[in-house]
Amino acid sequence: MERKKGISMAVIKRLPKYHRYLQELLNNEVDRISSKELSEKIGFTASQIRQDLNCFGDFGQQGYGYNVKELYNQISSILGLNKDYNSVIVGAGNIGQAIANYTKFNKLGIELTAIFDANPKLLGIKIRDIDIKDIDELSNFLRENHVDVGIICVPRVNAQKVCDILVQNGVKGIWNFAPVDLDVPSDVTVENVHLSESLLTLVYLLNESEKDK
Amino acid sequence: MERKKGISMAVIKRLPKYHRYLQELLNNEVDRISSKELSEKIGFTASQIRQDLNCFGDFGQQGYGYNVKELYNQISSILGLNKDYNSVIVGAGNIGQAIANYTKFNKLGIELTAIFDANPKLLGIKIRDIDIKDIDELSNFLRENHVDVGIICVPRVNAQKVCDILVQNGVKGIWNFAPVDLDVPSDVTVENVHLSESLLTLVYLLNESEKDK
Repeated sequence: MERKKGISMAVIKRLPKYHRYLQELLNNEVDRISSKELSEKIGFTASQIRQDLNCFGDFGQQGYGYNVKELYNQISSILGLNKDYNSVIVGAGNIGQAIANYTKFNKLGIELTAIFDANPKLLGIKIRDIDIKDIDELSNFLRENHVDVGIICVPRVNAQKVCDILVQNGVKGIWNFAPVDLDVPSDVTVENVHLSESLLTLVYLLNESEKDK
Repeated sequence: MERKKGISMAVIKRLPKYHRYLQELLNNEVDRISSKELSEKIGFTASQIRQDLNCFGDFGQQGYGYNVKELYNQISSILGLNKDYNSVIVGAGNIGQAIANYTKFNKLGIELTAIFDANPKLLGIKIRDIDIKDIDELSNFLRENHVDVGIICVPRVNAQKVCDILVQNGVKGIWNFAPVDLDVPSDVTVENVHLSESLLTLVYLLNESEKDK
């Protein structure tokens, strides 16, 4: 699909939300929706929605609204969900196991191919039919198997080391749950989930709103 | 502490990161740091750092840099970490259990007081000495115990219902892991962790960077 270059990060961050709402509409067998109706559901203004979708091409017809299925398929394709991706999890602690058990990612086309941990007690244990392997086997595994996304769930002090092994072996996408900012080459994409930072933001806002009373 | 009103969300979102870096400096027994050195570590520009910290009062001395311990304590206090908070988790599935097992939140002063789930098989199981209770007991528990933060880890379809129970019983902070946008009154703060959206953003950026080659 033709696309304009230089889409802002703010628009990109909204795309998964469009995807989620359109999926719900599809599940509820809604065929068509106007930007006004979509706006009421999703909480962005109608003009914001028209502007966002305009970044990616000519969706919708004046006065007829959007064809839900078509828009959903196009947003899926923009997000890259028309392809499959292989992922590995490094670190099979609480968060690593929770992510491994989360079957929704499979449905999005992101397949978990292996889990690695340094703890000998965890080796050989299966999560959803996937063995937990020794972290010493990570480099070899990456050389023998194409992996798109490395999911880092190890403690902070080991995260950069794990990231370096992933990057040296060709992994271009890092989903990082360790509370640390990783150093990567410019052709590698990192998306952080910093849970403590999210919780601290909540606590701050909670206090601010108490003070306003 | 005196503070200027109307701090932007962008500044607020950076505070936990300052907190994390200052904690590391303290652990490494660093006493003083200039905005330039802090900038090299944290990845914001030195002028950004001076501007951010200026929002909250008069930190640092021209030419002497910041006193790390003092700055850390002041940022902790701005974040509201000089107080303790009670939290409950609703939903003891993969993510709920992972959060329950994450002891770091305790260290930040956010204590987990109870876990609730609707699955009878989970009732009575302990996570870190905390019983999983029947979700039917949630309202009663909230009436009898002051709870600041409700952590929602239930499936999407039940999240709003759980949120309503929390809010009706005086919970003012919601940490939401369900992939849904919750409806709350204006005096309630919601912080979302939408894992699928984070992963979809990563996949999108991964594809974009492939195309640039």
